[in-house]
Amino acid sequence: MRAAARAGREVWGATASTADADAAAGDGFRVESTVDAALAAAAERDALVVLAVPLPEVDGVLREVAEHAPQCLLTDVVSVKTAVAEAVARRVPDARFVGGHPMAGTAESGWTAGSAELFEGAAWVLATEEDTDPVAWREAAGLALDCGAKVVPTTAGEHDAAVARISHLPHILAAVLAATGADGGPLALSLAAGSFGDGTRVAGTRAELVLAMCDGNRSALLTAVDDALGRLGAARGALASTGGLAATVRAGNDGRAALDFLRDGPRDELRIDLTAPDAFDQLRELGASGGRVLRLDGDTAIAEQPE
Amino acid sequence: MRAAARAGREVWGATASTADADAAAGDGFRVESTVDAALAAAAERDALVVLAVPLPEVDGVLREVAEHAPQCLLTDVVSVKTAVAEAVARRVPDARFVGGHPMAGTAESGWTAGSAELFEGAAWVLATEEDTDPVAWREAAGLALDCGAKVVPTTAGEHDAAVARISHLPHILAAVLAATGADGGPLALSLAAGSFGDGTRVAGTRAELVLAMCDGNRSALLTAVDDALGRLGAARGALASTGGLAATVRAGNDGRAALDFLRDGPRDELRIDLTAPDAFDQLRELGASGGRVLRLDGDTAIAEQPE
Repeated sequence: MRAAARAGREVWGATASTADADAAAGDGFRVESTVDAALAAAAERDALVVLAVPLPEVDGVLREVAEHAPQCLLTDVVSVKTAVAEAVARRVPDARFVGGHPMAGTAESGWTAGSAELFEGAAWVLATEEDTDPVAWREAAGLALDCGAKVVPTTAGEHDAAVARISHLPHILAAVLAATGADGGPLALSLAAGSFGDGTRVAGTRAELVLAMCDGNRSALLTAVDDALGRLGAARGALASTGGLAATVRAGNDGRAALDFLRDGPRDELRIDLTAPDAFDQLRELGASGGRVLRLDGDTAIAEQPE
Repeated sequence: MRAAARAGREVWGATASTADADAAAGDGFRVESTVDAALAAAAERDALVVLAVPLPEVDGVLREVAEHAPQCLLTDVVSVKTAVAEAVARRVPDARFVGGHPMAGTAESGWTAGSAELFEGAAWVLATEEDTDPVAWREAAGLALDCGAKVVPTTAGEHDAAVARISHLPHILAAVLAATGADGGPLALSLAAGSFGDGTRVAGTRAELVLAMCDGNRSALLTAVDDALGRLGAARGALASTGGLAATVRAGNDGRAALDFLRDGPRDELRIDLTAPDAFDQLRELGASGGRVLRLDGDTAIAEQPE
């Protein structure tokens, strides 16, 4: 709400938390007393409804959407996309829906954990499916860009597979490393330096947050964990038989170099005509190549992608 | 040499690298033209000889020690301790030896990678075995403390098991995470945030350094990798059967909390009489509890350990 308001948008909301409602109202924002009332106002104005609740609450809120704004423009900011898309298809089949996931936020939650600058420069994924409503896509993209984010178009399935690898798996490996290190007792921990400190930092994240994140993405996460197990098992085998960790270490070098290149390497600008029949294909290709939409200029998306 | 000289010690050295020799001489240090000459001078003065070469070079340098200073006070700063102790026992059985490992340094090597402040506040392991020469132990401890480090007494075997868990395993898991993330392609890497960045930072370390480190500690590292494989496999099984990562995540929370407690928690001061018959037992107990020697006061070691 703060980021959208800063961009000059009219915003209102509702929350089950009295404390958050009071805090938002205290900051001058329009807070409806019930979700029903907020949805009814959205239906009347054909406003974009943004679902910002934890995954276990999605289904319950969608029932209210179905009752009060069944055909609304709808997006969400939940961290997994397939489960939300399935719930929307089941509960609000007539909504013009596009799944969203801004890669921003902290370990905290509630009104005080946010700010108008939270999304500045962040990647904001939009699930760009064959059957995604183009109007909803534009509305959600406009919101993301207004909030200072860059839009990464992909599918719900690709998104979930990607975050399993780069967000959920890191938490599991950090937990495994922290526990295996602690098994070495105080001596081992007293010798820990940068590599152990970095590798275990997110092992300090509150367990409920990590569990909620991983539970909603079980299938994609299993694939990522299996890949990691395969690679770790291969390292173990090579170490036991020939002492040769070269393949493991070089693959790690390459992976890290690919990350650095994507972050700091040269980029090309490109333009995508959103009225073209294959516009969504082009957008998904952009996302698959590590690119992102920087802004909308009428019917044209201005984007950048790695060279 | 810089850290020891800053503490007022007389130092001289030799190196196979002409560039490093020139750089050290340029900074005003005494550099002998050959290792033989440096060793002969050490033998004449009964100086403490510090072996600071990569593990594969240890054996060759020890042959020169055997020739020119066979009974010298000897320590080393190589990152694994069992392999070095075995080489010393084989090549220079009469040396008064204590293995050492300062937990400091960067990914760089050579004269320019060091500084007088490099060891400030770092843990400096001393291999405190049943048969370690007490005079050599005191000399090496004095050097470490003069350099600004804190002495962690343990055995070569315990040291190698510990660093396998908190230094070598983190590099392997970082490599596995970087490669598994990169397998997700540019889309996955473009969504990577803090958890992936932290977890893969050391995957950017030069491969030769990581391989040299791990190769010298194969047996202890195998144990650590097997422990990590067991924990990751258990997480995989729980995720596949019940979705329950709770045990994994909570063990990670606990491990990280143990690290934080050891780093920032309250500490007791204690004193160990180095002339007591069980002084080395007490020192090893200190190290095993996560403690370290802060300074020497005559025959007394002033130490701290976690409460």
